[in-house]
Amino acid sequence: MASAATRSLSSLISHRRNPPSSSSSSSYHYCYAPTPRPITISVGSKTTRRPISIVAASSSSSPLAGAGADTDPNPTSAPAVSKNRRPADENIREEAARRRAEEEGLNGGGGGDCRHFSAWYAPFGAADGDGDAGGERYSLDEIVYRSRSGGLLDLFDSRVGRTTWPYGSGVWSKKEWVLPGIDDEHIVSLFEGNSNLFWAERLGRDHLGGMPDLWVKHCGISHTGSFKDLGMTVLVSQVNRLRRAPLSRPIAGVGCASTGDTSAALSAYCAAAGIPAIVFLPADRISLAQLVQPISNGATVLSLDTDFDGCMRLIREVTAELPIYLANSLNSLRLEGQKTAAVEILQQFDWEGFEMCRALGLVDRLPRLVCAQAANANPLYRYYKSGWADFQPLTAAPTFASAIQIGDPVSVDRAVFALRATDGIVEEATEEELMDAMSLADRTGMFACPHTGVALAALFKLRDRRVIGVNDRTVVVSTAHGLKFTQSKIDYHASSIPDMACRFANPPVSVKASFGAVMDVLRTKLHGKL
Amino acid sequence: MASAATRSLSSLISHRRNPPSSSSSSSYHYCYAPTPRPITISVGSKTTRRPISIVAASSSSSPLAGAGADTDPNPTSAPAVSKNRRPADENIREEAARRRAEEEGLNGGGGGDCRHFSAWYAPFGAADGDGDAGGERYSLDEIVYRSRSGGLLDLFDSRVGRTTWPYGSGVWSKKEWVLPGIDDEHIVSLFEGNSNLFWAERLGRDHLGGMPDLWVKHCGISHTGSFKDLGMTVLVSQVNRLRRAPLSRPIAGVGCASTGDTSAALSAYCAAAGIPAIVFLPADRISLAQLVQPISNGATVLSLDTDFDGCMRLIREVTAELPIYLANSLNSLRLEGQKTAAVEILQQFDWEGFEMCRALGLVDRLPRLVCAQAANANPLYRYYKSGWADFQPLTAAPTFASAIQIGDPVSVDRAVFALRATDGIVEEATEEELMDAMSLADRTGMFACPHTGVALAALFKLRDRRVIGVNDRTVVVSTAHGLKFTQSKIDYHASSIPDMACRFANPPVSVKASFGAVMDVLRTKLHGKL
Repeated sequence: MASAATRSLSSLISHRRNPPSSSSSSSYHYCYAPTPRPITISVGSKTTRRPISIVAASSSSSPLAGAGADTDPNPTSAPAVSKNRRPADENIREEAARRRAEEEGLNGGGGGDCRHFSAWYAPFGAADGDGDAGGERYSLDEIVYRSRSGGLLDLFDSRVGRTTWPYGSGVWSKKEWVLPGIDDEHIVSLFEGNSNLFWAERLGRDHLGGMPDLWVKHCGISHTGSFKDLGMTVLVSQVNRLRRAPLSRPIAGVGCASTGDTSAALSAYCAAAGIPAIVFLPADRISLAQLVQPISNGATVLSLDTDFDGCMRLIREVTAELPIYLANSLNSLRLEGQKTAAVEILQQFDWEGFEMCRALGLVDRLPRLVCAQAANANPLYRYYKSGWADFQPLTAAPTFASAIQIGDPVSVDRAVFALRATDGIVEEATEEELMDAMSLADRTGMFACPHTGVALAALFKLRDRRVIGVNDRTVVVSTAHGLKFTQSKIDYHASSIPDMACRFANPPVSVKASFGAVMDVLRTKLHGKL
Repeated sequence: MASAATRSLSSLISHRRNPPSSSSSSSYHYCYAPTPRPITISVGSKTTRRPISIVAASSSSSPLAGAGADTDPNPTSAPAVSKNRRPADENIREEAARRRAEEEGLNGGGGGDCRHFSAWYAPFGAADGDGDAGGERYSLDEIVYRSRSGGLLDLFDSRVGRTTWPYGSGVWSKKEWVLPGIDDEHIVSLFEGNSNLFWAERLGRDHLGGMPDLWVKHCGISHTGSFKDLGMTVLVSQVNRLRRAPLSRPIAGVGCASTGDTSAALSAYCAAAGIPAIVFLPADRISLAQLVQPISNGATVLSLDTDFDGCMRLIREVTAELPIYLANSLNSLRLEGQKTAAVEILQQFDWEGFEMCRALGLVDRLPRLVCAQAANANPLYRYYKSGWADFQPLTAAPTFASAIQIGDPVSVDRAVFALRATDGIVEEATEEELMDAMSLADRTGMFACPHTGVALAALFKLRDRRVIGVNDRTVVVSTAHGLKFTQSKIDYHASSIPDMACRFANPPVSVKASFGAVMDVLRTKLHGKL
């Protein structure tokens, strides 16, 4: 335990405990599970000298989304520029206009008021206005500088305690960075965000060579049990708003193709708002267990005699025909919400990142990003090992980290951009490594999902190779609650997984119900402690 | 949705949304699942004119605990006075002394510093002192009055935003009411509390005759998925502190007999602190699925060839012999932590309760307590229906609400005391009623556990009978996350539960993977909405 003297730093939202003083920690790492599971922590490129820039991502469903790929004038970031990013020569105002046009097209062109689809910064006095007629707007990239003097960070901090609706949400407390123009009344929020930043004291001390500054961001302790809530609140709020707008063809529902966390989050937020949710699934691969959340929340679940790609193709066709909003993973509204997890980490470190960047010239202290993939589904890892020379999609094999069993990730360009910008690392974990890492973390008081196990396994490897130093501040992002994955934990602790040693299995001990027999077992189990 | 004008009230912690203005709501109800599941919301008797008095409960394992039962001079509360309550003629200081003596006896009598076991109020400047040598102490009963002028409530509010360790926790932000003397460094906290107070807008509007002021307190969205975290953080913190004290026989671990939420919470908090946890279970009734949390957290789980009562008897014997701390459900430390859920509700209503009680003479506005039991395990309900004339323990039948399958609840006297003091009600729910209520609530965006279903079923019945009026402010306490109970939800939605109609089952629809077939299904399902 840290001494009382080192506890003077305070934190927001999460009551962060301070590890033994480590103000000299030399570098930052973020570990998280890979595409499309990770929270997109967008970071600026080194040449722009932005400490943390919130990059607005455009929707992949936009017909114009690819326009900027060849026009990025920035040679250091050019090789990996995503087709879905805002072109570097387009400012946020132009993008807002472009996306407004796109969205009106997508939503039936009914003349709906779609100007809130894009994110921008407006002064507080004008936040409720439409911001169009002479209203001030600023690129989100400028907010960091303004906020240091203008008090935006202080405002965010103050909302944690004050919280007029909807500011109690970790997402909506940063409304100015997420969806500034929406009427509070249209917001559909289930108190998402504000998740615990857990000091992994025992894991760091006992199992990682004495790391004192290791943290796990528990995004999965949330209404539906995963980080998807962070993005879904933004998407469903916007749909809720649009449904009240005088569109000629009102939005009838929201659809997605997903067996997992996305359909769970979509269904819950839609149910809370009374909006029909539609989930498409491959018939041969689903069980009620995987679907119990959307089923319970009353979603219309279609079980289709095709594979997952077939489901995705069908829902795209259907949403083009019917007034059903597509909640696909590249939807920019969801990304804006998910980014708040990264902002929240900074906030929980008392905006240390901002301070440090300012003090050090804004460049050297960007956190290094670590993407971790299951070895059974590792196209990004292979790409990284090739020196970013050759990206080869592959057929992903089954993995306990089922949500990242992806062989051809659609957001690979985004991931590579962020990795290159932060001198990032890609690591992989075998099934045994990820299950062992998950189980070891559980021993220290967590209840991690297998995807968090992938990130933790990468951490173990990078510590072994001394890539992550013992005193480096390291944050592992945990994306879902372990309660969603009890079966794999049961199999592990029963040692019933083929070809796996299950080193940390901890099955119950059968004992005769007599005082003597019980005492014998306890004396053995607790030897040296009694 | 409420109009913007009604959103002016702010809330703490949870961003509470305001329903349409209902300042004239005539009474308050708390619904929750019964003993031993409920959060104990202790309320003062009418004669003491305390709006909300935090009654310190003594441990049932104490040999002296029954001493006060015959000495209570208060005739209005006398008939149901629990053997475990502090005698009315004993002040908190005397109780502290008594309990210190008891606890030293329990913990091996090693002369340990146990003066922090009882709760009292100490001025802030003295909070870190030992409070014994001339330090100020006040009965907890006085805090309400002091706080209105002295700013304790304001202090609690301010900690939501400021949160030096450990004040980010919903429990430890009220440290002065929970365990004032403990050193912050000894606290084992996993960010428990601060759970969402969910405005059940759709459930109230669509399914309960337009109730605008219905709320669900989601205590189960928490580190281990149940409200047990609230109490366990206090218990394990105290054990952690004692293990660092110079006891002649240090505490080797903490034990309990439980297959459910208690063992999960105990194991996680102990794992985080590095304290051995010991769980005793009947061999013929457990599965790894029920135990996956303690197993994963590394607890020593003993599977014994006896029934649950046999396990309880053995762990009492073992903890009397070995230096293992017993985490039984009557432990007063746990109750102190669990009470913060009630305080938190008041806080989330901007301390409206305190204000209202003060304005109205402190008496008439106590919330009415509703206890709900499964009809398969309803001894309290039968007792209530007998006019509190005759309590008969019974053999509880199986229920989906497995944690309240209790035929002879140990805390019945406590429950009756609280019910009588608040003109409370006991209601019961059949298996079908509780599963239907749970499933209907899920349709409105929750993901309730079957125990919450019991409370919701009681709410439906009381609304039907007009016992709860349409405009009454009503708070349902949800005690665990639905993810802990997926199997019963799966069975319900598969309509595979014998003799149950499963009215709200929502199975997936099998569809041929063609655009036309899909469109046909969607047009049927969404008829009138496209």
